[in-house]
Amino acid sequence: MSEFDEATHIAADGSGEIAAGWDIGGNANGGYLLALAGRHLREVSGRPDPVTVTGHYLAPGTPGPIRVETEVIKRGKRFTTVTGTMRRGERPMLQVLGMFGDLSDGDRAVEINTLEPPELPPIDLCLRREPTQGVVAVPMMDRLDIHLRPEDAGFSHEARSGRAEMAGWFSFADGRPIDTLAMLMICDALPPAVFNLDVPVGWVPTIEYTVHVRGVPAPGPVRCVFRTRVVSGGFLEEDGEVWDSADRLVGMSRQLALMAR
Amino acid sequence: MSEFDEATHIAADGSGEIAAGWDIGGNANGGYLLALAGRHLREVSGRPDPVTVTGHYLAPGTPGPIRVETEVIKRGKRFTTVTGTMRRGERPMLQVLGMFGDLSDGDRAVEINTLEPPELPPIDLCLRREPTQGVVAVPMMDRLDIHLRPEDAGFSHEARSGRAEMAGWFSFADGRPIDTLAMLMICDALPPAVFNLDVPVGWVPTIEYTVHVRGVPAPGPVRCVFRTRVVSGGFLEEDGEVWDSADRLVGMSRQLALMAR
Repeated sequence: MSEFDEATHIAADGSGEIAAGWDIGGNANGGYLLALAGRHLREVSGRPDPVTVTGHYLAPGTPGPIRVETEVIKRGKRFTTVTGTMRRGERPMLQVLGMFGDLSDGDRAVEINTLEPPELPPIDLCLRREPTQGVVAVPMMDRLDIHLRPEDAGFSHEARSGRAEMAGWFSFADGRPIDTLAMLMICDALPPAVFNLDVPVGWVPTIEYTVHVRGVPAPGPVRCVFRTRVVSGGFLEEDGEVWDSADRLVGMSRQLALMAR
Repeated sequence: MSEFDEATHIAADGSGEIAAGWDIGGNANGGYLLALAGRHLREVSGRPDPVTVTGHYLAPGTPGPIRVETEVIKRGKRFTTVTGTMRRGERPMLQVLGMFGDLSDGDRAVEINTLEPPELPPIDLCLRREPTQGVVAVPMMDRLDIHLRPEDAGFSHEARSGRAEMAGWFSFADGRPIDTLAMLMICDALPPAVFNLDVPVGWVPTIEYTVHVRGVPAPGPVRCVFRTRVVSGGFLEEDGEVWDSADRLVGMSRQLALMAR
């Protein structure tokens, strides 16, 4: 079993755990947490694909036991809508709202895409994100193969690009195929785009994160790009795109985060 | 009392109604529905501003009685997270997840905006969206003063711009000030951007809609722009921006909708 499948397993009664090793400086990655809860909601929905999933982050995800309580709000003809609360003891950690369906049977009559995939050098000319790079340990990077675009990768040694953009290649380190569930993690797996701004940024805690899964990814690594346009009042948004090997946009994300100093 | 405040009133026990006159062809506007439920969640939260609110649309909002059941998931130091289900009888119509706070006390140390407000002619050179224009009656336009950018307004008589963009001015017809609650409606109030594409579009039912309220709007009308970049597998996203009279971005939205023929 792949590391990701092992780390996102939740029993039928909703009990599971936040696995060790999927963290940044001790706190589990937000995308991993959404995939963990989202996989259980997907099970409950009985449908194969997350279509749109929103998470609100309520407490840091330290490793240890959790429970996910779910409620099916509606089972429709095409989609099932489910809510879930991830708790440790009584404490809420993540609130999730998801809609699940089957993305393999889409209506392909009108296909329009005015976006372009990010311009990325081949993987071996990008820079691997290492677990011990930078000021904070990122053990998650033992599990993920993320290769950043060279001009975006300098932030960890004070060579910031000056623009709030972060692009790179994503695969699982153990070769697990990228499916629609993985999209919930991938859209939060790169370092924050604002790390490339010439302003002091301490950390960027996500408060809300929504992923639209726009297609079933073709085999192979995906290319990702994340951009922040507006930092205001202590908040920032980060918009993500995930492109598959067939040049199709398969994931689109937005998160609202705090700009903490 | 303003028409909007009257139409979004819900009693303390969660009972209220979808008001007549806020519809497009008989079904209430999705933004109005989110504002209706969102106002009640805001009451329950005890905080002044919606910060991020997500709605999943489960049934068309015909006028009539509804109930909104809420649950406070977490009351934190700065934010309160609330979920809500709007039902008619047993039937779920809208599932909402919202985070509420106080947007007047933001940290203004870092303010960055690489976006530009939409280029719009003055209001009197834009074209008022009328309730009886086009093929479907839009009674909501008796309540709203929406003036579209001339090049975006031709879709109702087959003069589409060819690009999926829709921009215009927004005010309430009765002069009600635009506040952070109104943002939940405004980000879904213009005609769909894809109406300007040269492809057959019947209707565009929203399935998920998230609004980030990024600031308290300065007095006066707001300028809005909505864009769709990707239509794929029968789904489309629509991204919105709302700018106030002081050229500040005060609302950012994204929705996932079906491209129905």
